Amino acid sequence: MKNAKKYIIGASALLIILVGCGVAVGRALNNDDESMYDDTPKSMEEILTEIRSHMQTYNVAGYIIPSVDAHNSEYISLHDQRFHYVTNFTGSAGTAIITLDKALLWTDARYHLQAENQLDPAYWTLMKEGLYGVLTRDQWLLANLPSGAQIGTDPFLITSSEFERMGAALLAGGQRLVTLERNLVDIVWNNQPTQTNEDLIRLDIKFSGKRASVKITELRKLLNTNSAAAIVVNGLDEVAWLLNLRGTDILYTPVFFAYLIVTQSEIVLFTNQDRINETIQEHFQEEGISVTVRDYDAILSGIQTQAADGGKLIIATSCSQAILSQIPADQRIQVYSLVAKMKAVKNDVEAVGMREAHLRDGTAVVRYLHWLEENVDSGNITELSGAAKLREFRSMQEHFVDLSFTSISSFGSNGAIVHYTPTEETDKLITRDSIYLIDSGGQYYDGTTDITRSVHMGEPTAFQKEAYTRVLQGFLSLGSAVFPPLTSGAFLDAMARRPLWDAGLDYSHGTGHGIGSFLGVHEYPPYLVYTTSAADNQGLQVNMFVSNEPGYYEANDFGIRLEDIVQVVKANVSHDFAGRGALTLYSVTVAPLATNLMDLSLMSDHEVELVNSYHERVMKEVGSLLLEQNASDAYVWLGIKTQRIVKS
Amino acid sequence: MKNAKKYIIGASALLIILVGCGVAVGRALNNDDESMYDDTPKSMEEILTEIRSHMQTYNVAGYIIPSVDAHNSEYISLHDQRFHYVTNFTGSAGTAIITLDKALLWTDARYHLQAENQLDPAYWTLMKEGLYGVLTRDQWLLANLPSGAQIGTDPFLITSSEFERMGAALLAGGQRLVTLERNLVDIVWNNQPTQTNEDLIRLDIKFSGKRASVKITELRKLLNTNSAAAIVVNGLDEVAWLLNLRGTDILYTPVFFAYLIVTQSEIVLFTNQDRINETIQEHFQEEGISVTVRDYDAILSGIQTQAADGGKLIIATSCSQAILSQIPADQRIQVYSLVAKMKAVKNDVEAVGMREAHLRDGTAVVRYLHWLEENVDSGNITELSGAAKLREFRSMQEHFVDLSFTSISSFGSNGAIVHYTPTEETDKLITRDSIYLIDSGGQYYDGTTDITRSVHMGEPTAFQKEAYTRVLQGFLSLGSAVFPPLTSGAFLDAMARRPLWDAGLDYSHGTGHGIGSFLGVHEYPPYLVYTTSAADNQGLQVNMFVSNEPGYYEANDFGIRLEDIVQVVKANVSHDFAGRGALTLYSVTVAPLATNLMDLSLMSDHEVELVNSYHERVMKEVGSLLLEQNASDAYVWLGIKTQRIVKS
Repeated sequence: MKNAKKYIIGASALLIILVGCGVAVGRALNNDDESMYDDTPKSMEEILTEIRSHMQTYNVAGYIIPSVDAHNSEYISLHDQRFHYVTNFTGSAGTAIITLDKALLWTDARYHLQAENQLDPAYWTLMKEGLYGVLTRDQWLLANLPSGAQIGTDPFLITSSEFERMGAALLAGGQRLVTLERNLVDIVWNNQPTQTNEDLIRLDIKFSGKRASVKITELRKLLNTNSAAAIVVNGLDEVAWLLNLRGTDILYTPVFFAYLIVTQSEIVLFTNQDRINETIQEHFQEEGISVTVRDYDAILSGIQTQAADGGKLIIATSCSQAILSQIPADQRIQVYSLVAKMKAVKNDVEAVGMREAHLRDGTAVVRYLHWLEENVDSGNITELSGAAKLREFRSMQEHFVDLSFTSISSFGSNGAIVHYTPTEETDKLITRDSIYLIDSGGQYYDGTTDITRSVHMGEPTAFQKEAYTRVLQGFLSLGSAVFPPLTSGAFLDAMARRPLWDAGLDYSHGTGHGIGSFLGVHEYPPYLVYTTSAADNQGLQVNMFVSNEPGYYEANDFGIRLEDIVQVVKANVSHDFAGRGALTLYSVTVAPLATNLMDLSLMSDHEVELVNSYHERVMKEVGSLLLEQNASDAYVWLGIKTQRIVKS
Repeated sequence: MKNAKKYIIGASALLIILVGCGVAVGRALNNDDESMYDDTPKSMEEILTEIRSHMQTYNVAGYIIPSVDAHNSEYISLHDQRFHYVTNFTGSAGTAIITLDKALLWTDARYHLQAENQLDPAYWTLMKEGLYGVLTRDQWLLANLPSGAQIGTDPFLITSSEFERMGAALLAGGQRLVTLERNLVDIVWNNQPTQTNEDLIRLDIKFSGKRASVKITELRKLLNTNSAAAIVVNGLDEVAWLLNLRGTDILYTPVFFAYLIVTQSEIVLFTNQDRINETIQEHFQEEGISVTVRDYDAILSGIQTQAADGGKLIIATSCSQAILSQIPADQRIQVYSLVAKMKAVKNDVEAVGMREAHLRDGTAVVRYLHWLEENVDSGNITELSGAAKLREFRSMQEHFVDLSFTSISSFGSNGAIVHYTPTEETDKLITRDSIYLIDSGGQYYDGTTDITRSVHMGEPTAFQKEAYTRVLQGFLSLGSAVFPPLTSGAFLDAMARRPLWDAGLDYSHGTGHGIGSFLGVHEYPPYLVYTTSAADNQGLQVNMFVSNEPGYYEANDFGIRLEDIVQVVKANVSHDFAGRGALTLYSVTVAPLATNLMDLSLMSDHEVELVNSYHERVMKEVGSLLLEQNASDAYVWLGIKTQRIVKS
């Protein structure tokens, strides 16, 4: 559970309005044209005054500053942190709206306290989303700006579906949502960081398992199926996956800024051309593809050129309004990303890589938990220093590249904050007095990992044990479920929740997300959420990987979450759904569960056996690696932690 | 599980084409104008020839004959059985299409065998829906009739959403779906039964629990909420529920033919005016409502008059194309039926009535199962004669009116046919050699019932026991589930299916449907189906009643289904979902489960305890009533059937 991005599914746009922008223009990756100016940091007063001055030039009464990038990425680059620059707020989700005399920031309940602390009330009004009586952005605009007002936004930073929704809402009240040719923050931001220009990373066939030429051929088959002339690929992880290339442009997700247009005859890559050097050209040759390279900025004109052929273009529901607006309505096929669906099913090489990466990753986690228990009484291990130590153990593992997200290292009451990550201000000492929750992951050349364990190094309360046990029961129930192919994730979500629901307990997040192969730590599909419609869920198939992560959070007291990455595999049961085939799940995550937090009286014999057989596997697989790594103390410790439990 | 009708959710119509019908006309309830003709039954040759002659008059190359009535009723009157009249096929679902030289019937897999037997191949071609390579109706029309062809249908007998869908599909191929002012079958059908004219039934406040005036006030609040001037109520059960009236126009469902238009100032009832006699006028007075009565035929002109006011009209997604077409597109608010949602939550009087009706109904079932076991060795009890005996036991119960559907009385391999009902041709002897499945229900003044039990009066096989036990485990799991308010039915469906899925087994139908209070045996919402989108599902609330009916079907061998009606009630658990409140289910159905079909080695102690405590309640509640009814042999028998089971 991190700040999982919810993709909004929408139809084609209702209205497209470009102001002062007869010809669409691209967006420069680097703001070279600005860098000749003075780069002394500007005050909040200066920033807002200058933005308002540009707003008047563009004749907009309001200006929307979203917290996203042009590719709907989960994590964004420093260059793209416009929302933070303007507001000083560091939360990952929210929207700022600036008018000529006001500045407001909307963010959800996770961030209300943080926003209160970080916003300067002399300039900013906090709009606590979700609280009773707090106007939504649409409502506020309609209530506070006159009919006829134009509200401006950057077409690259708003999804086409959100543009359609908000545009229609404002239009109903006589206002117009318009897109501006330039981003007003970029004009003002004199010391805006440039995008990185580091070399791209070639992903060897021994890790990717499938040549780019094969992936492109599969994609071209989908063009035929959809009677489309081309597809515009806007997700950074999708471009990286298709080309078997990686980058370092964004923290935690090994991607690089690029778009791709694929037709039956051409592959056009829009990116910083300097990076497509001889090595990368060799890579394309080795991968069996011929790639035309154009500037990143040229994407809109590239789409226009393609659209001029009259054929249909496939675009994703997550694409920006800038992309959608280049394509005549009758030439658009807007669907949930086809490439996201393709890469959701791992090939056999990727699947083996995921298992191996998780074995090494689990070994790092075991070494950390052992180290923590040995050293907790020193009285100087905190959430932050603990997380740093865990990173150290990970970095010792083969094929390690980086973490896959900021570790959620949280002790006691901090663990009850679902989206918590420790900072200098919130950093707590880890002791034996409550539950320590560690949710973390790594990027390895052969796979991306994500694991959560919750431990108590002292004496848990009866309620902590009950809560842990119910979370564990849901975790085991989901992990051992048998189901026919293409089952919706909703079914499995219900399995994980049931034992908590039986006691009137619940958790306020989904139960599982997909995960990339040395790519994003969150991918969709698959998606295990019982409340979600099946629209963007193609159902579970062999070799999909998904997290299994139920939890329980007692506010101001403690948090519990267990998370394994599970692989969809064939099940060995006596019947096979009348020939359809039976599937089940296999935990690729290997790290011990906390037996001292289990209330065995609540558990069935079957559940006890599931824990014991899992622990046997953990000891065997991780134990071997610990010995290889000369971590014999951790080996002994793991032997104790995985001892068989027995119902009295 | 009966022929549950799937409501199709759609948006407003894309195209409305009326042929030869400048002014919309209503539909006469009785075909008096035809009855003066000779009523000698016509041959198939005559029927088809005459229909084709009328098709030429109307200039249509194809004519669609659906199997439904104008109110999207689950069961239809004899007058409405046009599909059967024309085809000779008695299945409840299908569509006939007649062209100038062909006649085709589409029906789904449930009915392929039956249709083969009943259709005369000299005239009819059977189109086996769902089989590979069989064209759909749209595909067949596009492939076999020329571009430009007009396909006619009766606008009353096609839902607006289906008209929109099919109209668009045909239009894409250059054909036009058109509505005809007269039903061509009605013109030809010289001996068409007339609609019944029996007196309406006043439902006493001691059964309805809520005055019509209060229901109308609640409905008017919804008009305000939706900024609508009026609502058109097209469901027969909805009209009956709103007015606290019942009828006998359709077998099994105590409704009468009528429409209702409700505005802030008026209630207009469109029905056979002769039936609104002094007694019914008194009823309206007692119920606190003033009702304007107009002819049933006047519904379309009534809608036109209302629409002429310029306000918006609420119509249901299930309404016919005839209704929708009377309302200008910008005046339509088409939503899932608001009245269906209102009546889904029973009031306290209805809730008590449901419990009492089910107690009496369970008593009848117990007396029948006892009688069956006593007499099975006579060698002359069949599925049909057994069902007749069960009806006899039901008819002895207080407030009994009729059955709520044709009993599914099925032995051995017949039980594996999910939608089976016995006929003279299929009627099997009931013996001790396999499983007997009886799914049946009654209409009582205080409630509608629906119960299924599966029994084996001899020695079940190990697989029959495993299958029964897994069905039972799902049934118990769903029946004891705890959940927060507004939980989607999908969650509960998953609970019921899990124990079967664990073994690679499944059933191909939903797990639960709502049920009326002395109304339809199937109501939606609530709806327990995990594959369905939440669109028409408002989530579970206290005092909703829903069936809990998992099953297992081994083709050509046996069928198992267990069905209770369960009431949503508050749960008594240690936590309450952080203040949201905890809900659970209470079985209002009381009849023993088959302990000789249970494999106790598969069951947990908790499951055994659930069976024992349920049986204790059955013995206590039904036992008392058996003694009151002087059925002491059945009382003794029930005592044996409900003896505690113990795991060895």
